[in-house]
Amino acid sequence: MSAPNAPANAAPKKNPYGAHAADFLSNVNSFQLIDSTLREGEQFANAFFDTEKKIEIAKALDDFGVDYIEVTSPVASEQSRKDCEAICKLGLKAKILTHIRCHMDDARVAVETGVDGVDVVIGTSKFLRQYSHGKDMNYIAKSAVEVIEFVKSKGIEIRFSSEDSFRSDLVDLLNIYKTVDKIGVNRVGIADTVGCANPRQVYELIRTLRSVVSCDIECHFHNDTGCAIANAYCALEGGAKLIDVCVLGIGERNGITPLGGLMARMIVAAPEYVKSKYKLHKIRDIENLVAEAVEVNIPFNNPITGFCAFTHKAGIHAKAILANPSTYEILSPQDFGMKRYIHFANRLTGWNAIKSRVDQLGLSLTDDQVKEVTGKIKKMGDIRPLNIDDVDSIIKDFHQEATTPKLEGKRAAAVPQSSSPLNTENSEPAAKKAKKASN
Amino acid sequence: MSAPNAPANAAPKKNPYGAHAADFLSNVNSFQLIDSTLREGEQFANAFFDTEKKIEIAKALDDFGVDYIEVTSPVASEQSRKDCEAICKLGLKAKILTHIRCHMDDARVAVETGVDGVDVVIGTSKFLRQYSHGKDMNYIAKSAVEVIEFVKSKGIEIRFSSEDSFRSDLVDLLNIYKTVDKIGVNRVGIADTVGCANPRQVYELIRTLRSVVSCDIECHFHNDTGCAIANAYCALEGGAKLIDVCVLGIGERNGITPLGGLMARMIVAAPEYVKSKYKLHKIRDIENLVAEAVEVNIPFNNPITGFCAFTHKAGIHAKAILANPSTYEILSPQDFGMKRYIHFANRLTGWNAIKSRVDQLGLSLTDDQVKEVTGKIKKMGDIRPLNIDDVDSIIKDFHQEATTPKLEGKRAAAVPQSSSPLNTENSEPAAKKAKKASN
Repeated sequence: MSAPNAPANAAPKKNPYGAHAADFLSNVNSFQLIDSTLREGEQFANAFFDTEKKIEIAKALDDFGVDYIEVTSPVASEQSRKDCEAICKLGLKAKILTHIRCHMDDARVAVETGVDGVDVVIGTSKFLRQYSHGKDMNYIAKSAVEVIEFVKSKGIEIRFSSEDSFRSDLVDLLNIYKTVDKIGVNRVGIADTVGCANPRQVYELIRTLRSVVSCDIECHFHNDTGCAIANAYCALEGGAKLIDVCVLGIGERNGITPLGGLMARMIVAAPEYVKSKYKLHKIRDIENLVAEAVEVNIPFNNPITGFCAFTHKAGIHAKAILANPSTYEILSPQDFGMKRYIHFANRLTGWNAIKSRVDQLGLSLTDDQVKEVTGKIKKMGDIRPLNIDDVDSIIKDFHQEATTPKLEGKRAAAVPQSSSPLNTENSEPAAKKAKKASN
Repeated sequence: MSAPNAPANAAPKKNPYGAHAADFLSNVNSFQLIDSTLREGEQFANAFFDTEKKIEIAKALDDFGVDYIEVTSPVASEQSRKDCEAICKLGLKAKILTHIRCHMDDARVAVETGVDGVDVVIGTSKFLRQYSHGKDMNYIAKSAVEVIEFVKSKGIEIRFSSEDSFRSDLVDLLNIYKTVDKIGVNRVGIADTVGCANPRQVYELIRTLRSVVSCDIECHFHNDTGCAIANAYCALEGGAKLIDVCVLGIGERNGITPLGGLMARMIVAAPEYVKSKYKLHKIRDIENLVAEAVEVNIPFNNPITGFCAFTHKAGIHAKAILANPSTYEILSPQDFGMKRYIHFANRLTGWNAIKSRVDQLGLSLTDDQVKEVTGKIKKMGDIRPLNIDDVDSIIKDFHQEATTPKLEGKRAAAVPQSSSPLNTENSEPAAKKAKKASN
C-alpha cells in the first residue's frame, strides 16, 4: 500500500511545480480525499445540519468525487446515529466513515450503522493524556488493539489515529503505529489537532512514519497558524496518501484544510490527476451550499472562489495578462468554471488595459491616443474611486472629440484644455465602490 | 548581514515549535516585516485609499511595530507621488519604501520623495521576459546596476527583486543576485508573483541564495494556492530575513501573506521575539480599519480574529480545555486581546462543558445529575439549533425539579416522562442560529 502509484507518478512531461524528484515516496500524484464536513465541520461554531442538509452535502461531495465522507460519531446523539445510517444507505460512490473514540462502547455502535469504515482516535500528547482521558501509552495500545480487532472482525475498514500528534513523544507515536500496523489497520492517522505544525516538520514526521508502517497514512491539519494547506501538501510529499478536508475548511476554531484551497494547491502540482479525478467546476456550488447552511460568507480572499481570485489590477500586469494569462496566473479560471477579470477602472491602470477596453467598446484609437486617454483616466482615478461607466464615458468622450471632423482648424485648436471632453459630467455623478465584497 | 542574530536565536529554553535545530541560517527568531498594504494592497480589486486613509493606515502599522512600510510607486499617478511624500514626512519609526520598475525614469522620481529606500523589481521569468518587458538577462543586469548605483548615490536603501522568481531560471537568478550583491544592494528579493511556490521549494531556493549573496533576503508570496504563510515561514527557516505582508493579505488576486496570519505562525515559533517586538493586541483594530476601507468582511476563518478562532465546540474538547487551555490551543487568545469561548449549546456537547455552565449559573448539581441534564440538552440539540438561553432554561428547570422537596414521593414519581422539565417552553420559542458570521 505504501508504494507510490507508479502509473500516476509517471508524468508524461516534466512539471516544474510537480512532485519533488527526490521524494520517491510522494503521493502528490496519487492522493485521496477524506471529506469531514459532516464530522469536523459539525464542530464548527455555526454548524447545525439537519438530516436533509447532511444528505444534500453528502451527495454534492460524492458528485465532486471525494474518496471518503466522514460523519459524526453515532454515539454523539441519537439523531447523529440515525443520520449516519441514512447516509450509508444512499449508495454513494464515496465510502462512508464514522469517527469514534478508541473505546469498545463506541465501536459496537459504529459497526452497526452500515459504514464502510471506522476512524478511531485517541489523544497521545502529554496534554491530552493528562487533561483529557488520563491514560498511559500501554493502556492506549491495549484499547487500540481491542477496538481494531473488533472492527476488523466485522469486515470494514479501520483507521487508527493519534490526536495532537505533533506534541506527542516521537518514540511513543512510532511504537503505537508499529503495533497497530502489525495487526492490520488500513490507515494510520497523523493529526495536528491544535494547528501548531509547520511544513518541514510535517514532511519529516511523515517520512519517518512512512519507514515504520506499511499501511496508508492519513493526515488532518488544523489551520490556527495558517499552514493547513501547505502542511497537507508536504505530508503528501513525505508519503501520506489521504488528506482530511472540509468544505471551506469549517471545523473546530478556524477549521482545517479547505477542500477548495487544497484543490488550488494540487492542480498546480498534479494537473492531470486532479482534473481527471475531481469535478473542479462544482467547487463553487458546494462552497455556496455549505456557506449558506452554516451562515457564513465566502471569504473575500478564498482560493479559487474569492470574489477577486482572478482579478488583475496593476497596469504593469494587464499588458502581460492580455498577451498570455499564464504570465500572472498559475490557476486557470476556466478549470473551475470561473472567469478572469481585468480591473482597469483605477489610477494604477496602464495603457494596455485601456487599449483592450477601447477595443471591447468597438472604438478605434491610435496608441498615442490611448496613452493620452489613459492619463486622463489616471488623473480622475486619483480624485475618487472609478467604476467602469466612468472609464467608458471618458473613453467615449475622448473618442468623439478625437474623431469629430474639425471644420475650423483654428477654432478647434483654441478650445481651452479645461473644457476638453475629459470632464465626466456625462458619466454617473458619483462613483460607487465595488459592491460589498462578500459573494 | 546574513549571520543569524545570535542573541535573539539563543532561546532560553527549548521550544518544540521553534526554529529547526539544523537551520543555522534561520531567521525565525529575528525576522522583520515589510508591510505593503499601501502598495500591494492598493492593487487589491476594492482598494482606493485617499491621502487621509493612507496616513491613518501608515500610523497604525507603525504603532503595531512593522519595520518597513512600502507605498505605491510615485510614477503610478500624480496623487501617488504626493501621498508618498506625505507619508515620508510623518516621522514614523518604520522606514518608508517605495516600489518601482527597474528603470531610471522611475528611480529619478522615487529618490526625490523622501523615502528611506527604494524597492526595484523586474520580471525574470521566461513568461515575463516574453510577454511583459521583452528584455533579456543582460539588459536586466545592465539596467539593475545603473538604477542601483544611482539610488545608492543618494544615500538611501536599495532592494533588487526579481518578479516571478519561482518560474525563473535558477542560474539566471543566482547570476543577477550575485551581481547586484557585489555592487552593494541592501536586500535582494524573491517573489512568488503568481502564488505557485510550495514550502520545501521555497526553503531550498532561499537556502541556495543564502550561500550566494551576503546581503539580506526579502520574500514576497502570493496566496493563490493557499501557501503564503507557510512559504514565508520556510523562507525564514532557509535564511530570509524580511517578509512582505499586507493587512488581511489584500493584494492582486487573492493577495499575499497576511500580517495577522503570519503573526499567528510566528508567535508559535518565536514567542518572546514576537511578543516583545509587535503590539499583537492591535491586530484586530488594524484589520478592521483596512477591512472597512476596502469594504470587505473579516473572513470567518481568519487566523486570530475570525469570529470562531477561539471557539471550542466538541464535547470531548471541552473537558480538557476547561482543565488546561493549552490542550487544544496553540495560540492564547489573551496575547491578541481576544477571548476564548466554549460552545456548549449543541448536540455535540459533553457533561464537562455543561457542568461548567451549571457552575457559572451558580447552581449545584451532582455529576450524575449533570450527566442526566446533558442528555436532555443533547436530545433537544438533535431537534434544532440551540442557543445559550435554551440550555440555561433546560438546566434551570432541571435544577428546580431536582431540588424541589418531594412532599408526596409517590405522586412525584408518577409524573410521566413527557411532562418532565425537559420542555423548553420557558425558553425562547424559536432558536435562532448564531448571528450571521461576519464580524
